Amino acid sequence: MAKPKDTYYLTAHCAGSLGTVDVVTRYLCEQGCYVVEMQTFDDVLSGHFFIRVEFRPPRTTPFDEAGFRQGWQPRAAQFAMQWELVAAEVRPNVVIMVSRLDHCLNDLLYRYRTGQLAIEIPAIISNHPDLQRLADWHHIPFYHLPVSDENRAEQEEQVLGIIKECEADLVVLARYMQVLSPELCAALTGKAINIHHSLLPGFRGERPYHQAYDKGVKLVGATAHYINNDLDEGPIITQGVEVVDHSHYPEQLTARGRDIECITLARAVQYHIERRVFLHNGKTVVFTN
Amino acid sequence: MAKPKDTYYLTAHCAGSLGTVDVVTRYLCEQGCYVVEMQTFDDVLSGHFFIRVEFRPPRTTPFDEAGFRQGWQPRAAQFAMQWELVAAEVRPNVVIMVSRLDHCLNDLLYRYRTGQLAIEIPAIISNHPDLQRLADWHHIPFYHLPVSDENRAEQEEQVLGIIKECEADLVVLARYMQVLSPELCAALTGKAINIHHSLLPGFRGERPYHQAYDKGVKLVGATAHYINNDLDEGPIITQGVEVVDHSHYPEQLTARGRDIECITLARAVQYHIERRVFLHNGKTVVFTN
Amino acid sequence: MAKPKDTYYLTAHCAGSLGTVDVVTRYLCEQGCYVVEMQTFDDVLSGHFFIRVEFRPPRTTPFDEAGFRQGWQPRAAQFAMQWELVAAEVRPNVVIMVSRLDHCLNDLLYRYRTGQLAIEIPAIISNHPDLQRLADWHHIPFYHLPVSDENRAEQEEQVLGIIKECEADLVVLARYMQVLSPELCAALTGKAINIHHSLLPGFRGERPYHQAYDKGVKLVGATAHYINNDLDEGPIITQGVEVVDHSHYPEQLTARGRDIECITLARAVQYHIERRVFLHNGKTVVFTN
Amino acid sequence: MAKPKDTYYLTAHCAGSLGTVDVVTRYLCEQGCYVVEMQTFDDVLSGHFFIRVEFRPPRTTPFDEAGFRQGWQPRAAQFAMQWELVAAEVRPNVVIMVSRLDHCLNDLLYRYRTGQLAIEIPAIISNHPDLQRLADWHHIPFYHLPVSDENRAEQEEQVLGIIKECEADLVVLARYMQVLSPELCAALTGKAINIHHSLLPGFRGERPYHQAYDKGVKLVGATAHYINNDLDEGPIITQGVEVVDHSHYPEQLTARGRDIECITLARAVQYHIERRVFLHNGKTVVFTN
Repeated sequence: MAKPKDTYYLTAHCAGSLGTVDVVTRYLCEQGCYVVEMQTFDDVLSGHFFIRVEFRPPRTTPFDEAGFRQGWQPRAAQFAMQWELVAAEVRPNVVIMVSRLDHCLNDLLYRYRTGQLAIEIPAIISNHPDLQRLADWHHIPFYHLPVSDENRAEQEEQVLGIIKECEADLVVLARYMQVLSPELCAALTGKAINIHHSLLPGFRGERPYHQAYDKGVKLVGATAHYINNDLDEGPIITQGVEVVDHSHYPEQLTARGRDIECITLARAVQYHIERRVFLHNGKTVVFTN
Repeated sequence: MAKPKDTYYLTAHCAGSLGTVDVVTRYLCEQGCYVVEMQTFDDVLSGHFFIRVEFRPPRTTPFDEAGFRQGWQPRAAQFAMQWELVAAEVRPNVVIMVSRLDHCLNDLLYRYRTGQLAIEIPAIISNHPDLQRLADWHHIPFYHLPVSDENRAEQEEQVLGIIKECEADLVVLARYMQVLSPELCAALTGKAINIHHSLLPGFRGERPYHQAYDKGVKLVGATAHYINNDLDEGPIITQGVEVVDHSHYPEQLTARGRDIECITLARAVQYHIERRVFLHNGKTVVFTN
Repeated sequence: MAKPKDTYYLTAHCAGSLGTVDVVTRYLCEQGCYVVEMQTFDDVLSGHFFIRVEFRPPRTTPFDEAGFRQGWQPRAAQFAMQWELVAAEVRPNVVIMVSRLDHCLNDLLYRYRTGQLAIEIPAIISNHPDLQRLADWHHIPFYHLPVSDENRAEQEEQVLGIIKECEADLVVLARYMQVLSPELCAALTGKAINIHHSLLPGFRGERPYHQAYDKGVKLVGATAHYINNDLDEGPIITQGVEVVDHSHYPEQLTARGRDIECITLARAVQYHIERRVFLHNGKTVVFTN
Repeated sequence: MAKPKDTYYLTAHCAGSLGTVDVVTRYLCEQGCYVVEMQTFDDVLSGHFFIRVEFRPPRTTPFDEAGFRQGWQPRAAQFAMQWELVAAEVRPNVVIMVSRLDHCLNDLLYRYRTGQLAIEIPAIISNHPDLQRLADWHHIPFYHLPVSDENRAEQEEQVLGIIKECEADLVVLARYMQVLSPELCAALTGKAINIHHSLLPGFRGERPYHQAYDKGVKLVGATAHYINNDLDEGPIITQGVEVVDHSHYPEQLTARGRDIECITLARAVQYHIERRVFLHNGKTVVFTN
């Protein structure tokens, strides 16, 4: 859902120490910014601190974002904070990659066209032509880039080219059934979300529903995670789960899992674009709502 | 679970205005108090502001709690804040009221004796003698106060007497199967948690599982709520739910509901004693974890 | 998901008595029909018996369905059974009614076009023109039938005319935001599924998410039920639920509820077309899987 | 919950073929036995057939169980069925093994003493003395059998001796924190239920909550499974799950997991004693209710 027009997200993290909260809230107060929602987490084990604030600038004059940044920079620097300031009304560019299975794509497109996901989709990339018509109907450029072991390097270069050209803020692998090269993984680290159709770290790799069937599990699920250099081991953002039983063959598990894959992926994208997710030391901090 | 020994909860609420967050965090910073966890909520519709902070005082000298309060009072007063400061290590006194059904009592006592619920239980009050042995085994005073339409006023007076004598911070109605008088409700408003075995506001009143059976619902649940002057309509703290089907007769619904009643009630008590619940205008704000 | 081509559903119900199971399984065995899945329920309180069998006819010769029926009828008659025999491969005709909100329609259409829901959709009826394009894209006839207090009787007659002409096996009210007349309700009793966006019987009637907000509930949900003469009180087929908190205003509750509405409605339709639902004495028996 | 006094469970499984259902239901009908609940499953992939019937013998004369068995045996033999007939009112003997953690034991004992679990508990075996008092309060013999790498063989012999002497129908490992020898595993195959505090096959082995924390998962769970020769890989009966986030350190994950461990284990025991679980080819078929 769209946030009110004048909402901003300020996020920051740094080593924990006295005053990390105060430096943020004091500056916001001095600037006349109204705190709408705020969450902090101080990781006792790693000693790292995370903060997320939704705020509204003063409504009397246009918000001087550049001035805000300039004033904030030295204060953040005192704590060596890494920080971001984002206007909620700016829709991030999200490039979607798919293969043939369309349930996650269809779901994301629905949320996109109804405004539930406040994003732009400058490109859909696929190694198959099948989903062109769906993209067309939504007036989204569709790039059909077939891939094989022979052309993987060039194809991935094309993919990266499109991502770059679109100035993508995020790449979403919506059941893109290809193993990415270490190079592409590296290029996308922390900038791409994948949906894996299992409760990672269980059933990594291919055909997880078949693996789940073989083990006779009574729950299946889906995991939305950031890409890192180990495709199915990236930092987990959120997971969903569904009850199953002995009567679910791999085909039924697959069907049963679709809804939970869609919802889990959409939720992860939502968290990401609302700046609710911090990626630190291979794990995430997620301020859900 | 017990919090670290030197953790404090500071909670406050007031009409929303610029500076409400800053006044809290600045004071904490000035006092050398380390913010461990912090959540705020600014209710757009009612214009009311809520904040909860877990903090650790400086470890160099013993914490001067009285001095902290004295310094804080005038600042809170600027915003007409209602506030509380509580040491996490102080175990609140919780008086439990039951009738004959013992599943919620048994569950609370288990969490009490294993330290999961960091509370003291100075008294168990019942209108039946049945659960005396369970109380004895836990070395908790048990008060058998039979009640009928004739002696309700006196019995409730005795109940209130015990609550007062115990300096109870909270009363828990753990399936106390009596309708309280308006007077007792009034005396306990906001200070007592009841567990109702339905998803309120559906199935208010007696025998909700029978009502649920008659309606053929496919989900049953439990609601933990504060007592107010309308017994089954008090502000909801948390709710739990369980899937059922046509084969669950009222007796089976009752059995199925027991686990969810226990968990829902224990969770509400936990939220309450960790000062996660704000009661305002007949509704709650609950900063869950 | 499509069942194997030669699967049949045989369902029956009658007053419970000795031999009700045997008469079904013995006949199937005599006819050389292989039982794939079977469930029975004997309602102790009402004394009514329900049975559902999925079976495969012998593969040696084409299945003589008419002969099967003829041979079965007198045996069923011994127990005054009401029964149905349906080939799983026959796709039922489902007429969908909508207003402006398209999430449930979009979800049903996705499941329809991917074959997850093995149905035909001969018509989409709406009192608004908005969803014409979505219907067009799926090549489904779209009927725009505006309705007001003045023309309700004629409009409903038109609706019934389309339903009749399509030989609809089922009508699905996918957020059709109109109160049906008692006449239309009567005509659709047991033949139409509605999705109500609350955990009925809580929050009947209009704007249930606003009602839920006002009550401060911590769970919201959706209820799929058959239409009867009391619109929001028809027999419940299935219900879904979602956790919420104080930060969910009515708008957020509405958004949060969408996914659960879609899934709950789709599940109910699936149960219905797989003949898993029995409607008896104002309640349902649902043999889920 | 106790079943009606005259309820019997008949379960059977064999290679799937025409007539497997009929042979069961026809015999029951001939014997005047009333089918209360019945479920079948025909495993398409393995070609194996499973059936479970709850029935009531005729009430006119005392049930001749021996005669029933004698008459049934040759019919079952036609299909090489493995079968069991059990009177629901006969409480199976369940030996419980624990170490120091008492949450699962406490939960099972509560369900035992209130009759929710219709079992006898002839013995509690522990490698620590801590839970003696809890056993005493329930008047259950408690065997303290310390174990170390030196005496494992003798200790396990003692354990097996007690199990044998008690004529145990089932052994429940309620957080018994010892790795069983292959010999003991073999002796208990299919006769013992273990609760593992993870969503197996994820996080096998020791300290699964620590493993889960390290991986940053957003869901934790518990798995009740039969023991086989690979301790944490036995056939799964049921699994439960709980949502967690970054703020749950291993200690919190452990606390969070307790409720779900208790419920999952109790559910598995219930399924087992109601003969809802079939163990076949290293996987289970579970006819839940």
